[in-house]
Amino acid sequence: MASVLILMGSTSDWPTMQAAAHMLKEFGVSWEARVVSAHRTPDLLATTMQEAEANDTRVIIAGAGGAAHLPGMLAAFTCLPVFGVPVSSKQLKGLDSLLSIVQMPKGVAVGTLAIGEAGAANAGLLAAQVIGTTEPAVQEKVKAFRAQQRDTVIAASKLELD
Amino acid sequence: MASVLILMGSTSDWPTMQAAAHMLKEFGVSWEARVVSAHRTPDLLATTMQEAEANDTRVIIAGAGGAAHLPGMLAAFTCLPVFGVPVSSKQLKGLDSLLSIVQMPKGVAVGTLAIGEAGAANAGLLAAQVIGTTEPAVQEKVKAFRAQQRDTVIAASKLELD
Amino acid sequence: MASVLILMGSTSDWPTMQAAAHMLKEFGVSWEARVVSAHRTPDLLATTMQEAEANDTRVIIAGAGGAAHLPGMLAAFTCLPVFGVPVSSKQLKGLDSLLSIVQMPKGVAVGTLAIGEAGAANAGLLAAQVIGTTEPAVQEKVKAFRAQQRDTVIAASKLELD
Amino acid sequence: MASVLILMGSTSDWPTMQAAAHMLKEFGVSWEARVVSAHRTPDLLATTMQEAEANDTRVIIAGAGGAAHLPGMLAAFTCLPVFGVPVSSKQLKGLDSLLSIVQMPKGVAVGTLAIGEAGAANAGLLAAQVIGTTEPAVQEKVKAFRAQQRDTVIAASKLELD
Amino acid sequence: MASVLILMGSTSDWPTMQAAAHMLKEFGVSWEARVVSAHRTPDLLATTMQEAEANDTRVIIAGAGGAAHLPGMLAAFTCLPVFGVPVSSKQLKGLDSLLSIVQMPKGVAVGTLAIGEAGAANAGLLAAQVIGTTEPAVQEKVKAFRAQQRDTVIAASKLELD
Amino acid sequence: MASVLILMGSTSDWPTMQAAAHMLKEFGVSWEARVVSAHRTPDLLATTMQEAEANDTRVIIAGAGGAAHLPGMLAAFTCLPVFGVPVSSKQLKGLDSLLSIVQMPKGVAVGTLAIGEAGAANAGLLAAQVIGTTEPAVQEKVKAFRAQQRDTVIAASKLELD
Amino acid sequence: MASVLILMGSTSDWPTMQAAAHMLKEFGVSWEARVVSAHRTPDLLATTMQEAEANDTRVIIAGAGGAAHLPGMLAAFTCLPVFGVPVSSKQLKGLDSLLSIVQMPKGVAVGTLAIGEAGAANAGLLAAQVIGTTEPAVQEKVKAFRAQQRDTVIAASKLELD
Amino acid sequence: MASVLILMGSTSDWPTMQAAAHMLKEFGVSWEARVVSAHRTPDLLATTMQEAEANDTRVIIAGAGGAAHLPGMLAAFTCLPVFGVPVSSKQLKGLDSLLSIVQMPKGVAVGTLAIGEAGAANAGLLAAQVIGTTEPAVQEKVKAFRAQQRDTVIAASKLELD
Repeated sequence: MASVLILMGSTSDWPTMQAAAHMLKEFGVSWEARVVSAHRTPDLLATTMQEAEANDTRVIIAGAGGAAHLPGMLAAFTCLPVFGVPVSSKQLKGLDSLLSIVQMPKGVAVGTLAIGEAGAANAGLLAAQVIGTTEPAVQEKVKAFRAQQRDTVIAASKLELD
Repeated sequence: MASVLILMGSTSDWPTMQAAAHMLKEFGVSWEARVVSAHRTPDLLATTMQEAEANDTRVIIAGAGGAAHLPGMLAAFTCLPVFGVPVSSKQLKGLDSLLSIVQMPKGVAVGTLAIGEAGAANAGLLAAQVIGTTEPAVQEKVKAFRAQQRDTVIAASKLELD
Repeated sequence: MASVLILMGSTSDWPTMQAAAHMLKEFGVSWEARVVSAHRTPDLLATTMQEAEANDTRVIIAGAGGAAHLPGMLAAFTCLPVFGVPVSSKQLKGLDSLLSIVQMPKGVAVGTLAIGEAGAANAGLLAAQVIGTTEPAVQEKVKAFRAQQRDTVIAASKLELD
Repeated sequence: MASVLILMGSTSDWPTMQAAAHMLKEFGVSWEARVVSAHRTPDLLATTMQEAEANDTRVIIAGAGGAAHLPGMLAAFTCLPVFGVPVSSKQLKGLDSLLSIVQMPKGVAVGTLAIGEAGAANAGLLAAQVIGTTEPAVQEKVKAFRAQQRDTVIAASKLELD
Repeated sequence: MASVLILMGSTSDWPTMQAAAHMLKEFGVSWEARVVSAHRTPDLLATTMQEAEANDTRVIIAGAGGAAHLPGMLAAFTCLPVFGVPVSSKQLKGLDSLLSIVQMPKGVAVGTLAIGEAGAANAGLLAAQVIGTTEPAVQEKVKAFRAQQRDTVIAASKLELD
Repeated sequence: MASVLILMGSTSDWPTMQAAAHMLKEFGVSWEARVVSAHRTPDLLATTMQEAEANDTRVIIAGAGGAAHLPGMLAAFTCLPVFGVPVSSKQLKGLDSLLSIVQMPKGVAVGTLAIGEAGAANAGLLAAQVIGTTEPAVQEKVKAFRAQQRDTVIAASKLELD
Repeated sequence: MASVLILMGSTSDWPTMQAAAHMLKEFGVSWEARVVSAHRTPDLLATTMQEAEANDTRVIIAGAGGAAHLPGMLAAFTCLPVFGVPVSSKQLKGLDSLLSIVQMPKGVAVGTLAIGEAGAANAGLLAAQVIGTTEPAVQEKVKAFRAQQRDTVIAASKLELD
Repeated sequence: MASVLILMGSTSDWPTMQAAAHMLKEFGVSWEARVVSAHRTPDLLATTMQEAEANDTRVIIAGAGGAAHLPGMLAAFTCLPVFGVPVSSKQLKGLDSLLSIVQMPKGVAVGTLAIGEAGAANAGLLAAQVIGTTEPAVQEKVKAFRAQQRDTVIAASKLELD
């Protein structure tokens, strides 16, 4: 199994969540993505987390929308760090997803990222930063990514009116 | 086991949730209340629902606050109707609880009541109404309760300035 | 009259609300859908509920948007269980509909589903679950639907980057 | 019957709503206040409005909290102008009351005032302004009230630090 | 000058606000619509209200979006009843407009309608209802409009699945 | 007249707004505070701004709550920079005040500070920064204040558990 | 360096922010626009502000979206007045941007404008008003702009139905 | 330096943030807590992060309220994982803090916990989970804590009415 397991409740979340996979790929961190639904396959939550722990997965990333229970329920079944991504919802634009993921009670934690694709990308980045604390090669790649971001900003020439 | 099972994530939810029990008691519907936590005892969700189904429970009432996953996760494990009560939260006053409970995805349903004690009482009332559809004695008591409410309003004399 | 009566304030709500009817059809539960407006035909609220009670209707489903008074007002006129669907609104995207339906005062209950089509579908599902508590054939179909949902998730192959 | 009828769903709304009565009293407009509940006495909505129309009532003021259906339902039963007051609610502080009252669909109107006591007072003021459009004595009193308000502001001496 | 004066801050509000004019036209109430901006022509607020009072205008309707100050500032300059319409705004969809209009302090009142076109139509309807309290011909037309609305709902045949 | 004019709609805003005066006093900038109400003394808006311009006032600070129109209306009557302070409101805690002040339309600007006392203090600070751009003595005092703030943070010893 | 420095976190903010530049150009105030990111080039914050202070810049305008830290962080590094523009965000439409910019703690101030392009234009206008307090030529141009706005409103002919 | 560095903008945040320290102490993870302000000591952000990286700190925890920039700005200066805690704010109860922390743009990540003390405790727990991925002794203590939580729920006897 991969270092990072990316889970989501539906294949319809994959267009958002693959930003996490792209980020991990950039940092050379192995990942695997699966559909596991808190509500439609609740019996798979425990087994998926047991499998992850048994296979040296380091970080769980979970995305969900609306009454988004997947990240918190995965966190309930594992001691691995879980990062949650609020997927944007049709009417409330992910405000429901965000509150459903971030407002966890004391004792079971989910590190929550921004709503939507930016949050998914940052979940991948944060997972790489966690792994980078013990794997220097990953941390170097994160640093290079950061330097590249800085260069892009600086390269932006002065702005002129259209 | 009782006709209605009232579940909540913490004993601290009981002051809110016992309004459901009081309502059921008024209608002569048997109930039982327990603490089951989606996040701290996730392995009990499935077994509690199996036990309820095996013992002729008719309705599940579940209360939770913040990232309130209990009602939706119970609904994931049973085909009994589940009614959810958003317990008020410290900072966001139950808006987080409400959205976490009501915004369920298509395919797993939770009938959600108002935030706080009024919602808990109404969960008990709604459960009695469900049972009343096949048990006339219960429906009669609900009708009597309704008539009594009407009388209370009508008995309110005209209002005078302080 | 059918086992489930689906009411809404305007024909413009039907594209949303017919998801409830599709769900009931799947479970073999008889349904009927009508337009009744809390604000434009307030005199029909009482008679419609009396008719439903007289004809062995088991559950009322009501959808409305904006200042959504239909579900709560129907609940005021019947002891049958009422499930409310907040139809999305033009500007506030159903947040107004949701609060207008769910925040009922103690003593008159509406079991509220999610905003929009998912909520309408789940209203149908929840009505079937209520009926299923006394009609095993319906409950079996709900269980089959659940199993099918589970299979769909599991059949989703591992996800690959585009 | 009085020129202005002040209605509310519960005696617990009277501490808020009597600000409307005080304002009307100041302008010499006759008023009467009663408890009528949209949800607990729905059958009284029509009769109360018929009685008001038959007795030359000019304006209806209605206050309610939470899923506040009273103003809109009264408006559904009368062609008299209806002014709604969102009473503050325990958890959502009247945001639910406000949206439930103000977001009426096209065709049935409620003129909505601010949440709480200021809104109740202004409902009384607005009712007096409506009556004042045909009763000069009332309009004169409204003008005097306005002048007095102006004087109070002007009389406030320059402000010094504590 | 007309019985009802419809004011708005910009010609861009006219597509929304003309729903008020259409409604008044239906009820045979004379109206006039003008652009007056609280922020760009603040000196015209007082003179426009003086002119309205001098010319027997009965009701002011004012629409504005964002930090919507026009209805409240007109109310500050007149004792005629003012009805406010929150025009939808680009980012916050009229929630800012609504709060800016409805949350008036005690002593200066604005009767506020729903956000957008439905609210504009209802402002026209409510103005007609105010005028109808002393002009029976207008009230009759309002009643006919209500009856027609009722007929439209009843004429909606039973709903069938697509 | 003073360099900075602090205006507010009611003496009840002074406990919040005097934080602006304290800040200006610290920086040696002259100030004057008065009650002027957008809704109760609308005729004073123009004259107060004319007086300010004639007397070399550099900056206007205005605080208001609820449907907070004062800052925007002052800005409509002057070309001096106007800074607005959303005073906290009873039910919505200043969210209404904030949106009423900050969401000004293109063409009339209000620089808005945080809700409540922190915002009032920062309005005084920002006014001093504006004046400091041409009065070095004021800018020096702002710099000294900043340095002092920095020292306070650094002086905070390491934190220990209670 | 120019009198006003317009900064933003990304070139994608320029379509919004150039409204500030257009406004300054209209008033004959020199401006310069650059990309500086609080998160991607945090080391440039201090140096950019030092450079601005050394080159007689009078006002800083900063636009950012989402967790919008740029305006507040620039304010932390300078005693020049900073005006912040909340750029609209994809899901929350700039509500996140607004709260991230306006709710600054006591001691470091950002004058915040409306969300989006109107706010950007007004940031340019407000900067010109600040400069106009000591440069009469700029103030005259602001006054002319205001007069022109007034003329545009007045020129709008009476409105007719489509 | 400790394995986890807990930073906050003010000593007034310590009553909230020490819940993180208590949690880390329970898991035998070394921690250190300091006051560093994004706005009052912006020059310390870079040096504090450099010091942390040089001293084998594994995780940064940062708490802030209102326009809460500290977690995001620390993340901008380090490749260590940063967990943010939205401290409750006076008026908006931490909704501003939450959005300011969680809505980070793509490329700089903050794992965000719940508003207030529960979030602070969970930041400590999540940091321990991160460290536990490579330090079995810590992970064992997290597992024991989880087991203890489970036992507490199970030990709660059946609930009786008061």
